[in-house]
Amino acid sequence: MLEDLKEKVLEANLALVKYELVTLTWGNVSGIDRNENLMVIKPSGVDYDTMTLDDLVVVNLEGKVVEGNRRPSSDTPTHVELYKSFTSIGGITHSHSQYATIFAQACKEIPCLGTTHADHFHGTVPVTKFLTEDEVNSNYELNTGKVILDRFNNLDPDAMPGVLVAGHAPFTWGKTPMDSVKNNLILERIAKMAILSLQLNPNLKNLPEYISNKHYQRKHGPNAYYGQKK
Amino acid sequence: MLEDLKEKVLEANLALVKYELVTLTWGNVSGIDRNENLMVIKPSGVDYDTMTLDDLVVVNLEGKVVEGNRRPSSDTPTHVELYKSFTSIGGITHSHSQYATIFAQACKEIPCLGTTHADHFHGTVPVTKFLTEDEVNSNYELNTGKVILDRFNNLDPDAMPGVLVAGHAPFTWGKTPMDSVKNNLILERIAKMAILSLQLNPNLKNLPEYISNKHYQRKHGPNAYYGQKK
Amino acid sequence: MLEDLKEKVLEANLALVKYELVTLTWGNVSGIDRNENLMVIKPSGVDYDTMTLDDLVVVNLEGKVVEGNRRPSSDTPTHVELYKSFTSIGGITHSHSQYATIFAQACKEIPCLGTTHADHFHGTVPVTKFLTEDEVNSNYELNTGKVILDRFNNLDPDAMPGVLVAGHAPFTWGKTPMDSVKNNLILERIAKMAILSLQLNPNLKNLPEYISNKHYQRKHGPNAYYGQKK
Amino acid sequence: MLEDLKEKVLEANLALVKYELVTLTWGNVSGIDRNENLMVIKPSGVDYDTMTLDDLVVVNLEGKVVEGNRRPSSDTPTHVELYKSFTSIGGITHSHSQYATIFAQACKEIPCLGTTHADHFHGTVPVTKFLTEDEVNSNYELNTGKVILDRFNNLDPDAMPGVLVAGHAPFTWGKTPMDSVKNNLILERIAKMAILSLQLNPNLKNLPEYISNKHYQRKHGPNAYYGQKK
Repeated sequence: MLEDLKEKVLEANLALVKYELVTLTWGNVSGIDRNENLMVIKPSGVDYDTMTLDDLVVVNLEGKVVEGNRRPSSDTPTHVELYKSFTSIGGITHSHSQYATIFAQACKEIPCLGTTHADHFHGTVPVTKFLTEDEVNSNYELNTGKVILDRFNNLDPDAMPGVLVAGHAPFTWGKTPMDSVKNNLILERIAKMAILSLQLNPNLKNLPEYISNKHYQRKHGPNAYYGQKK
Repeated sequence: MLEDLKEKVLEANLALVKYELVTLTWGNVSGIDRNENLMVIKPSGVDYDTMTLDDLVVVNLEGKVVEGNRRPSSDTPTHVELYKSFTSIGGITHSHSQYATIFAQACKEIPCLGTTHADHFHGTVPVTKFLTEDEVNSNYELNTGKVILDRFNNLDPDAMPGVLVAGHAPFTWGKTPMDSVKNNLILERIAKMAILSLQLNPNLKNLPEYISNKHYQRKHGPNAYYGQKK
Repeated sequence: MLEDLKEKVLEANLALVKYELVTLTWGNVSGIDRNENLMVIKPSGVDYDTMTLDDLVVVNLEGKVVEGNRRPSSDTPTHVELYKSFTSIGGITHSHSQYATIFAQACKEIPCLGTTHADHFHGTVPVTKFLTEDEVNSNYELNTGKVILDRFNNLDPDAMPGVLVAGHAPFTWGKTPMDSVKNNLILERIAKMAILSLQLNPNLKNLPEYISNKHYQRKHGPNAYYGQKK
Repeated sequence: MLEDLKEKVLEANLALVKYELVTLTWGNVSGIDRNENLMVIKPSGVDYDTMTLDDLVVVNLEGKVVEGNRRPSSDTPTHVELYKSFTSIGGITHSHSQYATIFAQACKEIPCLGTTHADHFHGTVPVTKFLTEDEVNSNYELNTGKVILDRFNNLDPDAMPGVLVAGHAPFTWGKTPMDSVKNNLILERIAKMAILSLQLNPNLKNLPEYISNKHYQRKHGPNAYYGQKK
């Protein structure tokens, strides 16, 4: 069942380790089959070292396990919620990568300070509000998805492929599971460079918009000319 | 003698290297057999590269060597003191991991600034008082244990599996030797993220308690649902 | 065609990975054959893991592809512009290495604070101006080259083998492709040490000029005595 | 000639790479045979990757090459000067390790802020004065040795096995070449922890002297009990 997607989800989860985005069993990547409306996700609390295809769990968009002997990631309801609203995405990554998590903990959005940011995240990387006590005590993970969607009310998830959950950590997404991991890695890099750029120059302003637009369009716009023709 | 425990203690000591928690021969992990009331601990000043099961030392709860040709870690009396009072723990790690040691040197407790912290350490990570000159000059390592116990007067070592010894470095513990190493690694991660979160936002407040409680209970409470069923 | 140069350019591109100067496919190295007036450059957006000699692209000094099935790096016009004016150089590296990029984002020049800097960069590492909106919207990459040349109006590219493009990232160069990578690595090291030296001592002054001159001449002057006789 | 010492010096130079204390060809380690009054030192500007025993250079205490086809490290006269005055030491390391170099550039001594420091460096790690223009222009490397010796007028090189040369970088020493490398690594660790401890707590005071003395004596005094019996 969904063997091809499972392989992509496993490979993407292992890339979290390769890119040093996770500690121990923290973090998880999922992928979705839009025809079947089924997602494949990492099991909860299983070591990356020993994880195999058989450990992955298939879940439907009501969040019910359809296949697999493991409990799915405890963050599964957040993934489901995002897949239901962000209909163009094919993969989601959650990690506690250090510098992105620092911004999440500090409840600071990441301003666009350079072209590295502009190349991949179109504008300021947003932070959600804190969940209320009620939102935490009933359906915490589902409500985590809802506060993300609330924050994206006026944002395009294709142009802004990630978010910082206040006091928690980042979620990123992309066309594929691996793309969502790469966006997690990029977010980590721009977060580190942002905190140190602001320390070096506390009066630093955002990159001029005509430059950030240029860089984003160079990679992602209809006339993108970065990379090879597909 | 205690071959199974020795293997766990060796593996846990080598994990200190794998997780980059030690420099040279610094740091040590022990484990205890609660039936025999005997602990197994790393020898003092021996290279991790060449350490074998035969280098490990068996010590009783009076701190006397029961088996082994090596001198036990000079911190052995601290381990003994903790095992005698924290009766639920099975392993102890001492390291000079960099960011946790920075907090110990700065004599600053680590506030709970995010869910990464809340997932594993239930509340502010405490710092001991400095030992007095008398406490240093007679039975220094035993008294190090005593100032830790003093600081834990009103704290639950199961919910707060680590401490910073003022001017020195962290001790962590857990159900097993490996758990105590993992808690050392987690402490290192949350210490690094805390120092940088505070630099990014000097007015940062603790994570709301209803969120930190939720995260702690999700992993550790009676209704924990993180990870696989045992 | 230019097989020897291609091997050097491939090796230099892979050194970017070895020295941890790149993330994903970011960054590119080129080399020039001054007899043929042809340069060899990395293809755009191709993984370093799978890159082979056949992926490299040969481009002339009008920026036209002369050989190769791949699109050349999108930064090719910047490389061309530098090769045309800096006639003594044989290789160019562009990366988004973290600490050099932090200085570029902060629009701060890197002062010469120690002999590590003085050994390789003779004076303050310059930052360009921001490109204007017009310069961005027509021939962005060519104009990136022009603002670098503008900044080097009174600077010697042999003594100052690199620059920070404002809001963007570093370009470095050298006698060979590999030399340009090594200068990129050195720039990264001195950038990291500069930001932290300034944090440790905010009143820090530049290294006395008689020391920085001595160190530069020791390695690069006519009476250089560092290294082995060639 | 001095084959045993050469092996130790080669191994110690390669440990600089293993411990990530060097970039490119920076840094050098030497060792001395006190019976022959001959030292063995790294050649100047040779890659660590390809260095063999045959590349090492034997130099006498007038700084003259006695054996070897390579130019010795340009810092050879500094090593000679230190060996002549610090008669108990057997090895010297010079590196541009990042955090120690940051303190050297900032011209700040490293205060003893914790037991990690106290275990190995007995007191504040000193910084030299800047060399004068005359000292730089004639016999620069020899005069570098002299300003170190000047700074050690009232210091014991056995208890303080390293120094920061102002605006330059650290030199460390020890009983053997490998001990001098280990002291270089330790200096790097305590430098990093010191800069961040001071950022976390700007009012931080030195570790109480009765604690730093205890830790130093535990490892180095006549009644040292750390490590195994020799």
